[in-house]
Amino acid sequence: MFERFLSNETKYLRTSEIRDLLKLTEGRNVISLAGGLPDPQTFPVEEIKKIVDDVLLNNADKALQYTATAGISEFRKELVNLSRLRGISGIDERNVFVTVGSQEALFMLFNILLDPGDNVIVEAPTYLAALNAMRTRKPNFISITVTERGPNLDELERKIRNTHNDGKKIKLMYVIPTAQNPAGTTMTTEDRKRLLEIASKYDFLIFEDDAYGFLVFEGESPPPIKAFDKEGRVIYTSTFSKILAPGLRLGWVVAHEDFIKEMELYKQNIDLHTPSFSQYIAMEAIRRGVIQNNLPKIRRVYKEKRDVMLEAIETYFPKDARWTRPVGGMFVFAWLPEKIDTTKMLEKALQRGVAYVPGSSFYADYSGKNTMRINFSFPKKEELVEGIRRLGDTIKQELST
Amino acid sequence: MFERFLSNETKYLRTSEIRDLLKLTEGRNVISLAGGLPDPQTFPVEEIKKIVDDVLLNNADKALQYTATAGISEFRKELVNLSRLRGISGIDERNVFVTVGSQEALFMLFNILLDPGDNVIVEAPTYLAALNAMRTRKPNFISITVTERGPNLDELERKIRNTHNDGKKIKLMYVIPTAQNPAGTTMTTEDRKRLLEIASKYDFLIFEDDAYGFLVFEGESPPPIKAFDKEGRVIYTSTFSKILAPGLRLGWVVAHEDFIKEMELYKQNIDLHTPSFSQYIAMEAIRRGVIQNNLPKIRRVYKEKRDVMLEAIETYFPKDARWTRPVGGMFVFAWLPEKIDTTKMLEKALQRGVAYVPGSSFYADYSGKNTMRINFSFPKKEELVEGIRRLGDTIKQELST
Repeated sequence: MFERFLSNETKYLRTSEIRDLLKLTEGRNVISLAGGLPDPQTFPVEEIKKIVDDVLLNNADKALQYTATAGISEFRKELVNLSRLRGISGIDERNVFVTVGSQEALFMLFNILLDPGDNVIVEAPTYLAALNAMRTRKPNFISITVTERGPNLDELERKIRNTHNDGKKIKLMYVIPTAQNPAGTTMTTEDRKRLLEIASKYDFLIFEDDAYGFLVFEGESPPPIKAFDKEGRVIYTSTFSKILAPGLRLGWVVAHEDFIKEMELYKQNIDLHTPSFSQYIAMEAIRRGVIQNNLPKIRRVYKEKRDVMLEAIETYFPKDARWTRPVGGMFVFAWLPEKIDTTKMLEKALQRGVAYVPGSSFYADYSGKNTMRINFSFPKKEELVEGIRRLGDTIKQELST
Repeated sequence: MFERFLSNETKYLRTSEIRDLLKLTEGRNVISLAGGLPDPQTFPVEEIKKIVDDVLLNNADKALQYTATAGISEFRKELVNLSRLRGISGIDERNVFVTVGSQEALFMLFNILLDPGDNVIVEAPTYLAALNAMRTRKPNFISITVTERGPNLDELERKIRNTHNDGKKIKLMYVIPTAQNPAGTTMTTEDRKRLLEIASKYDFLIFEDDAYGFLVFEGESPPPIKAFDKEGRVIYTSTFSKILAPGLRLGWVVAHEDFIKEMELYKQNIDLHTPSFSQYIAMEAIRRGVIQNNLPKIRRVYKEKRDVMLEAIETYFPKDARWTRPVGGMFVFAWLPEKIDTTKMLEKALQRGVAYVPGSSFYADYSGKNTMRINFSFPKKEELVEGIRRLGDTIKQELST
């Protein structure tokens, strides 16, 4: 009806497949392995309640008022401390920027950095909402296969050299080195250093998404690439959605001050600043150790759920499927026999009462037709088992037709 | 240093003059009439505290979790009720969209609607942060003089006819009909209806910013233009920043469902959704009548402060200056003798210990060199008097040189 009033760019917007799916399953007897929600039992509700009472008693005038675009100064200092727990040093509050979830960091930085046609390296598969945000900038995607230990760096170097041989440059690589979404893989420390050397050699930026850096539940969580960055070449983002509560909508960026200043200008246009009230809550949660003390519980809950899911997959999936064995995060990624198109199979899965995300959404070129992402953080354990059983039945049925 | 990595659009970003000013005045003995902050004594802190306790007791799992992109369904229903208090009827939750402050509504809709070169009508002067968000879309601005009762509609019709005679169309008009920022003027009901008829005749959209609709403290607040809209031609936005607390960062849009759907797609890229926690607080504040019951106090506080400011201006400003006498909102706008350039005068005012916003920032063409916006909502009454005295001295000094 109002089509004539829309801007030309508006038509490039695509709905998020995950969200459409969530709508499909609403109010139906469907076990959803499609989401990416934290388990609400990991929310430190009592501690948040105490914090909010104290904030409203002592700092209501500030916590309810407008604040600076880059974030509350004292909160940015606490984010320096929190980032140090991930091994990032040599920064101060001027290198920190507060966003409305890390999604806003993705949106802002892709807009600040990318022009149409720019060469952008992404993992295949990679985070769907990052891909969608990038797509609005119409870049040229260069996809790198994700192996069991993250992106294949030999393939990466080869493709970069090809690009350079064509007289073109790389603008940036978007990468999730730890407990990757959707693949669940984690890069080794050596590979992180090597990737940084490659970026330096070919002069491109690394945009590192460390959403799951605190959520490694097996072995050590390797330091983020940002921890090795001496040139200011790495832009780092993380989120409170997985370690405190997504409903506060808080993320942060650690980057060279030049980028922080550009973000400040841009965010004035978008929403002036991130909610002060949320910032005060998270600031106190860091100061009081609420986040730090809650991490062991989160890791335990997710490790248990992962184990339940992997065991169920082992039991119910066909033998010629393969899947990741994540050491952190919230997802398992599966490759089914080539014959299966997971997008086409989805309707049948929903009829059997289980939802997942078809994997092609996670590929810049929409390949990965036979892949799927399944979530273990939100469903209850018995739902995980029953969901995987239903999914296994769907797959076997699909293979037999 | 990293200039080479920035997108072409990034250079169109301009810093907000208001925010730069606020930085200038930090930590100095300067009375700032430059801001646009609500008086913190208007925050219903005790009621918010009670609400937060109840929300965390009864709905923590939802209030701390991810939610729908358009906003929490029950909250959108409450926003239908709140909008009805402004005279808007015939809508349901599908016409409502929740944003991170009304700034995000401005940003999103200008991006959804505007292409470079599109003809956009704005008031002269108009809200600076809206202008800056629009500027990134590189439209062609058509400025309409603001008179004592809002935009001059004869001038508007003349300029639209000229545009049409050139074979071009108007895309939209951005307008603040009530307690306009910065001018403080309010359109009559007749003019609102006439403007809507003009929009219908020439087939353009009206983007109505009703930030101060609930803040009319003298006489009745006329219904917003949206209240007369039968065609879905008016996109309406308002905010909780003035009627509850800006630190929650909550705004909302009322519009035809076609626009709501486009916003939903776009916001998935920007920040997924507006903080659930803030939404729960505001939802309960509507349900419990906290907002409605708090309005008389807010209006009384601001009316008293306006009176103090106007009396001080009468006393200390030169006789050949003129200024608005706002019946609502937070600002007085002043026209000084033509000789004065308020941008150049600012440094001298700061030396005398008072800050204001030079008016040219509020004009699409940066005219209005002799104008200024001064805020009465935030400073204490004695600061208002002393600030205006210092400002009067600065102006008289400037006139005598």
